[in-house]
Amino acid sequence: MKALGRQLLVELYNCDFDRINDTKSVEKAMIDATEQSGATIVNSDFHEFSPYGISGVIVIAESHVSIHTWPEYNYAAVDVFTCGDHIDPWTIQEALKSYFKSDSVSSMEVKRGLFKTQPGQDLPFKADESSVLGGHSQGHSS
Amino acid sequence: MKALGRQLLVELYNCDFDRINDTKSVEKAMIDATEQSGATIVNSDFHEFSPYGISGVIVIAESHVSIHTWPEYNYAAVDVFTCGDHIDPWTIQEALKSYFKSDSVSSMEVKRGLFKTQPGQDLPFKADESSVLGGHSQGHSS
Repeated sequence: MKALGRQLLVELYNCDFDRINDTKSVEKAMIDATEQSGATIVNSDFHEFSPYGISGVIVIAESHVSIHTWPEYNYAAVDVFTCGDHIDPWTIQEALKSYFKSDSVSSMEVKRGLFKTQPGQDLPFKADESSVLGGHSQGHSS
Repeated sequence: MKALGRQLLVELYNCDFDRINDTKSVEKAMIDATEQSGATIVNSDFHEFSPYGISGVIVIAESHVSIHTWPEYNYAAVDVFTCGDHIDPWTIQEALKSYFKSDSVSSMEVKRGLFKTQPGQDLPFKADESSVLGGHSQGHSS
């Protein structure tokens, strides 16, 4: 069996309140961490909620990186969904752990899109050669 | 233990090629499914890749819904990350399964942000009362 994608579900506990309570701080950390991993950023979209909490998603050519923060719990949930072999999603976890000063991290890696292959053979279509054709982003009034 | 969020990781196999290969079709299906669940849509962001594949994320007041499609494998990976009690993430899975004509679905539900509580007690801060303060979306040249 071979997987089209891999996904890290990262739980960051005991984060620094201020660092996960500021949209600019969270967005900068996410973009820096994503760039460090070698991923290609297509679009970033961050939102702040009242009374607390930031939600942000970075669409990358290799899938996405998302974050939701609960500053009142000093907690952030990060997902790193990647395809292809050329980026290391764990660098994103380590960079965010450090930036948010989390001293308690747990994570799980999940394989996505499993297909049967012959032993030693790869999947018939390579996921690594895609390029962005286009797209659009649209805000919705609430 | 109580969780701040819950996340469905949905694997949709044997999808209809055309329905997961068209950005407008995928975006409409995702928005309709998300609205049906009762979630509040904040922003949607969809991108098309060459030669195949759509990536899309809808930020909702209750976290996010994401999709990545591999039409050449008739496969789509959907995540539904929610907080609060008032929406049912499973309705999103069922709506997309039907729209993409998938006859093979597997899914996993993961609890995110676990905190210790006394038996019968809820978490000290409720996640259900947030509202959007603001945000921005930014495209990046590749």
